Amino acid sequence: MTAASLNSLVTRLSPPPIPAVQAWGKSYGGDHGPLIDLSQAVPGYPPHPDMLRWLGEAAASLDYMNYGPIEGETSLRGAYAAHVSELYGAEIAGGNIHITSGCNQAFISAAMAVAAAGDTVLMSDPYYFNHETTLSMLGIKTGFVACESGNGFVPAVEAVERALTSDVRALALVTPNNPTGAIYPPARLKAIFDLCRKNSIWLILDETYRDFLPEGSGAPHSLLGEKGWQDNLIQLYSFSKSFCIPGHRLGALTAGENVVDEVAKIMDNLQICAPRAAQGAVARALPALIEWRAGNRHEIDLRAKALREVMTDLGGWKLEAIGAYFAFVRHPFEGRSSTEVAEYLAKHAGVLSIPGEYFGAKHTRFLRFAFANADAETIQQVRGRMVDFSL
Amino acid sequence: MTAASLNSLVTRLSPPPIPAVQAWGKSYGGDHGPLIDLSQAVPGYPPHPDMLRWLGEAAASLDYMNYGPIEGETSLRGAYAAHVSELYGAEIAGGNIHITSGCNQAFISAAMAVAAAGDTVLMSDPYYFNHETTLSMLGIKTGFVACESGNGFVPAVEAVERALTSDVRALALVTPNNPTGAIYPPARLKAIFDLCRKNSIWLILDETYRDFLPEGSGAPHSLLGEKGWQDNLIQLYSFSKSFCIPGHRLGALTAGENVVDEVAKIMDNLQICAPRAAQGAVARALPALIEWRAGNRHEIDLRAKALREVMTDLGGWKLEAIGAYFAFVRHPFEGRSSTEVAEYLAKHAGVLSIPGEYFGAKHTRFLRFAFANADAETIQQVRGRMVDFSL
Repeated sequence: MTAASLNSLVTRLSPPPIPAVQAWGKSYGGDHGPLIDLSQAVPGYPPHPDMLRWLGEAAASLDYMNYGPIEGETSLRGAYAAHVSELYGAEIAGGNIHITSGCNQAFISAAMAVAAAGDTVLMSDPYYFNHETTLSMLGIKTGFVACESGNGFVPAVEAVERALTSDVRALALVTPNNPTGAIYPPARLKAIFDLCRKNSIWLILDETYRDFLPEGSGAPHSLLGEKGWQDNLIQLYSFSKSFCIPGHRLGALTAGENVVDEVAKIMDNLQICAPRAAQGAVARALPALIEWRAGNRHEIDLRAKALREVMTDLGGWKLEAIGAYFAFVRHPFEGRSSTEVAEYLAKHAGVLSIPGEYFGAKHTRFLRFAFANADAETIQQVRGRMVDFSL
Repeated sequence: MTAASLNSLVTRLSPPPIPAVQAWGKSYGGDHGPLIDLSQAVPGYPPHPDMLRWLGEAAASLDYMNYGPIEGETSLRGAYAAHVSELYGAEIAGGNIHITSGCNQAFISAAMAVAAAGDTVLMSDPYYFNHETTLSMLGIKTGFVACESGNGFVPAVEAVERALTSDVRALALVTPNNPTGAIYPPARLKAIFDLCRKNSIWLILDETYRDFLPEGSGAPHSLLGEKGWQDNLIQLYSFSKSFCIPGHRLGALTAGENVVDEVAKIMDNLQICAPRAAQGAVARALPALIEWRAGNRHEIDLRAKALREVMTDLGGWKLEAIGAYFAFVRHPFEGRSSTEVAEYLAKHAGVLSIPGEYFGAKHTRFLRFAFANADAETIQQVRGRMVDFSL
């Protein structure tokens, strides 16, 4: 009698990285003041008081106790479609929206809708680690589009072209990027989208961080206005960061109605429907909290400025990319891995970051700083923590 | 330029069955009084007022706004482990528990933890349709253990043995059963578990409906007290039915700590963590609402009695199994499919049920009635709706 065996596609995955990094923070003794947590992307300010009130009202209401529509609450699908339509200058209907339990779930739903075990999905390199583990655990093969620091980590069209093989079903990109922060210009996105269309593959575009684009940015891209976009584009979004409600788990997918129908089959199996009460609350918040979200965008701009200033003063460290939430920073310790550096920085300087190699082995000279987590004053303290830091 | 293609494992699935059935209900004109909805399993009474209050408090609280532990809130894992320990007379710790966003998610997490595309998982036949579609969309092959109406739809050990092939990684059972209602006796479960152990495969045991076992039932089985159970058993549960909160999406998985670690990797990719506020509320409710849940068990008993009485009076219809939520009823219309009968019954008699063939093609002579959805008085009205019913 031997123990039953586990799925090797899962057992060979590393444990989830965020809890490992958080454990380093717990080992920090506090010598330099409180821990500065720039690891997991979490808004460093609370939700709007109205948001809290609406969440509480909805959760206590009988209206949301029962199962709801698989695709999401009609109210939220409509409110979000109106928001997307305005932001992109496009005509998106509620039927183009599928609500999910966070953006990771939007990603796995999109991936399963277009690829099965044995198919290939391309990602940028560096990549968001959960995208890579999601595909791997499904037995979907991954290919990579190298993004060079010399190009600001924006993928070149030629690099996508080189990575295309006959078994590729989709290209998954994140803009503004996680981990680098890189903001992909609209023209580049259009050129990459055209390439996807020419090759009849999907572009899965994760725009979790788009609400934190610099002030004055226009529409992030024009793709949702392209005729026939529904044949090749699936766009992903998270309500977690913009409304400061990651614990409520809410995301959305925008796609053609036939794709939404396929995603509904997947979601029915994954969890029937996303949690309902938070959907009702966010449907109210989307039009109501526009100004508050604009204020947050301004605040994130200030934080980015603060980090830029800090980094110019730190000899050896080099800010190679910074954008709408994250900065990708080269560390000065040749021969030391990013994991060693991040662990040491956490335990001895009280600054928590994510090692670059978590986003692809070759990025071991980098750390990712989620600068949006901390206010400008706190970010300024990073200088003192890091100026004399060495391993 | 052609449209990118979709995953054929998903496109070939039928659309989710519940919305299709609900659409029939909307076509009912109301000639015989309000629709009696015995389709989707939803508690026919509201949550306890304290539950509503706790849900509202938690959802409005800053305590649950951020990401939480992947495995679930420590408070809920502990409270649920204590509950399971008491119910089964076993020693289950919080580390044996993984909280999920409903029991469908517990199932897909368990399935992915033990099987990859190309492996085989056995199910009972009739089966819960979402289990079948979940495995199919993952490319996991399905095998079936025939459950005969002559045996009360309880699987025979020999039937499991006959279905075992070398590529089987797990046997998935549901007790009390969906769709038949059959309650699998502890001795049968023990014998089947022993067979699984002998063959080094997993038993995935979905006990979503166990809180509705007839009053006076003892522990549902002894498996969690078996030495080394962790090597072969994964148990699933839903908080939706017992606490009347399906819209909040909360379930749980009980397994060995090494399995919980693997499920955490999967859950991190599926959605990072289950929604947190409802976890906090249920952690309070689990010990506090014991008497209320006992009262509901009594109420469900009354509903089962009412359906038994109704069915004895209906010539041609035959109640072939009834248990802790569902009844599986043979219809009298030889040559007519269960879908035809259910659709006609919904549209013309205002009684909504699920066609037997949704649970496996050969069950087309059956309808599933979720009798727990309606109170005894309402169930008595089913007699008048069905006594003269014909196609």
